[in-house]
Amino acid sequence: MKKLTTLAVFLLLCTVTFAQQAIWGGQSPTSPEIHDDNTVTFRLRAPKAVKVQLVGDFLSTRKVSPNGKADIDIPIIVDLKEGNDGVWEYTTDIPLKPELYSYSFLVDGLKMTDPSNVYLIRDVSSLTNVFIIGGERADLYKVNKVSHGTVSSRWYYSPSLKIDRRMTVYTPAGYENNGKKYPVLYLLHGMGGDEEAWISLGRTAQILDNLIAEGKAKPMIVVMPNGNVSQEAAPGESSLGLVAPNSQLPRTMEGSMEESFPDIVKFVDSNYRTIKSKSGRAIAGLSMGGFHAMHISKQYPDWFDYVGLFSAAIRPRDGVTSLVYDNQEGKLKVQFDKHPKLYWIAIGKSDFLYKLNEDYRKLLDEKGYPYTYYETDEGHIWKNWRIYLSEFVPQLFK
Amino acid sequence: MKKLTTLAVFLLLCTVTFAQQAIWGGQSPTSPEIHDDNTVTFRLRAPKAVKVQLVGDFLSTRKVSPNGKADIDIPIIVDLKEGNDGVWEYTTDIPLKPELYSYSFLVDGLKMTDPSNVYLIRDVSSLTNVFIIGGERADLYKVNKVSHGTVSSRWYYSPSLKIDRRMTVYTPAGYENNGKKYPVLYLLHGMGGDEEAWISLGRTAQILDNLIAEGKAKPMIVVMPNGNVSQEAAPGESSLGLVAPNSQLPRTMEGSMEESFPDIVKFVDSNYRTIKSKSGRAIAGLSMGGFHAMHISKQYPDWFDYVGLFSAAIRPRDGVTSLVYDNQEGKLKVQFDKHPKLYWIAIGKSDFLYKLNEDYRKLLDEKGYPYTYYETDEGHIWKNWRIYLSEFVPQLFK
Repeated sequence: MKKLTTLAVFLLLCTVTFAQQAIWGGQSPTSPEIHDDNTVTFRLRAPKAVKVQLVGDFLSTRKVSPNGKADIDIPIIVDLKEGNDGVWEYTTDIPLKPELYSYSFLVDGLKMTDPSNVYLIRDVSSLTNVFIIGGERADLYKVNKVSHGTVSSRWYYSPSLKIDRRMTVYTPAGYENNGKKYPVLYLLHGMGGDEEAWISLGRTAQILDNLIAEGKAKPMIVVMPNGNVSQEAAPGESSLGLVAPNSQLPRTMEGSMEESFPDIVKFVDSNYRTIKSKSGRAIAGLSMGGFHAMHISKQYPDWFDYVGLFSAAIRPRDGVTSLVYDNQEGKLKVQFDKHPKLYWIAIGKSDFLYKLNEDYRKLLDEKGYPYTYYETDEGHIWKNWRIYLSEFVPQLFK
Repeated sequence: MKKLTTLAVFLLLCTVTFAQQAIWGGQSPTSPEIHDDNTVTFRLRAPKAVKVQLVGDFLSTRKVSPNGKADIDIPIIVDLKEGNDGVWEYTTDIPLKPELYSYSFLVDGLKMTDPSNVYLIRDVSSLTNVFIIGGERADLYKVNKVSHGTVSSRWYYSPSLKIDRRMTVYTPAGYENNGKKYPVLYLLHGMGGDEEAWISLGRTAQILDNLIAEGKAKPMIVVMPNGNVSQEAAPGESSLGLVAPNSQLPRTMEGSMEESFPDIVKFVDSNYRTIKSKSGRAIAGLSMGGFHAMHISKQYPDWFDYVGLFSAAIRPRDGVTSLVYDNQEGKLKVQFDKHPKLYWIAIGKSDFLYKLNEDYRKLLDEKGYPYTYYETDEGHIWKNWRIYLSEFVPQLFK
């Protein structure tokens, strides 16, 4: 066994940066530790720290009014207690409900990730640790012992935008071998997001794998394009290099995404075995992606039988002029005269876009355009978008 | 513009954990900042810290002897200086050479990632920030304005191991549309690694995209399987859930990987347009993966015309019995009697496996088996494995 031990030790040392930790640092404590009753303990070894705190989306919230404007919910910050060996610890008061949660530590005010937990998700320019409490709907977010689809990062040329662009494509288990044609869900991210957002924060591959395996959703292709027309690809994946993500990109929500969307559909229809008709296409998105889904679906009224608006931004920005946003009522009439099979609107009660969605529903009601409405607690958060995806997908292509 | 501003602000707040930072935290300083002369400044806002330090694989090293055993190179740790507003700063003394580098901060002894830099790579259970100094060979590690291949996470069933397993597959630009058959490089990771290691730490997609675009490498498929037979997939991607990575996995280097390797080749040959012959197949790996490449290529002497041993572990562990490791000299004779086109051995001068590789080269010399040898500075590190990949690939399938 000596050789293995030597090899293993040296492999641990092989990237010099880590060698420090492996030889001289203490062992990382277990964190987070999910107990049988679903309470969770967080631990951080920080012997020299004066104060260690935890922020996380499972902690209770309080209302604040930044800049004196609308109320928003901010989670309380809890203090960890220092125990033996400089390990700070906090255990939740109550069991956590099934969900994918995120958290960070604050060490003397400095936000840091948990060095014991390698699972991080990037949301725009913030990285936070994540963990999953299983059970109920959250079991859809886990990798289970079911057949798994393929997730690909695929580049395509956009003739309208004249650049190579990157998309993420989920093809269901069996796609490569059975010769069948599949329906396609186009799934769009929000502002600051990119073609990686739905697959990482949204757990799209897990939700689809699990719903399909349970027979609750039809096998389908899910195409997750990049909705920022000025971007080739997600931060770090384009020729811009490893630059800081920028949530204020040019040419956002001014019509170009909608106008260039046929490039994406044409590429997908010519590169995958798709059902090339309205009954085989769905489009949905969150926030800015919901805005895109709404405007694209009425701009191309023969293309999508299933439309999902998740916490959608509804109205174009003031001052934006684009043919895409002209004559909304006329285009909606054309779209609904063609009887889409599902027009699904979902939003959280405390979403800052609630009122705009309410106004939009009133407009649809006045016109007698049928839609399905799904309302949840809370607001403009990924927890809700995972719920909406897992509610929307089973209704498609039936 | 008001609506956009409101939307943008709220989107920044949308994941509550980050809201803390966005509203009350200061802006992150720019870090790392790569200056025109390739010196680099690192910054961290930590007003309450007593000491802030930097560890990184670009810093000079000193020799240490852990446990009184062999010397290894450990980078020195440098101190940052506190400036205005609690921002600590360090600028490298000298310009850095072109390379992909990694680093972490130590805040009062606590290792943390740089909150200004979202680019992290996981190596086994350590996450460190990365940045690239462009130029020379390091331009191969960048995403450039060239045609890009597709990177897929693909699951397959292993009849030998009786589990579903995950591999990463790179298919070159154009693969999906041209109907051509392609050669395949099987590229194997080291101990503690998984099917994600070569694509993230190894920059395989970038290296292949760039070498193919420059006409320096033939377009090829690169298959990066998981070399730990007890694992379905990388940490976080299997039904084990989001558990801590384990670098000491069962059934490692005991013959099962080599014995079950035909499952992988059969899957690839029946799922991709491959050249299904020895002249269309290469196999290479780093460390444990080099060990696998050596033993697999002699176990199946008609399969691979190109073999690459990168810092390879050569000898089986003491006490391991497997038919795979029996009769090494006899099997090598069979392999070399069939004249593989390239048998390529690469290692760094200070690699702890240098002597074992030297002994192995002596054996090959004694037998008169032709091989090509490539030696670099430094040791058992990813910097070398990226170099070896970019040297090896242009020699394949000519």
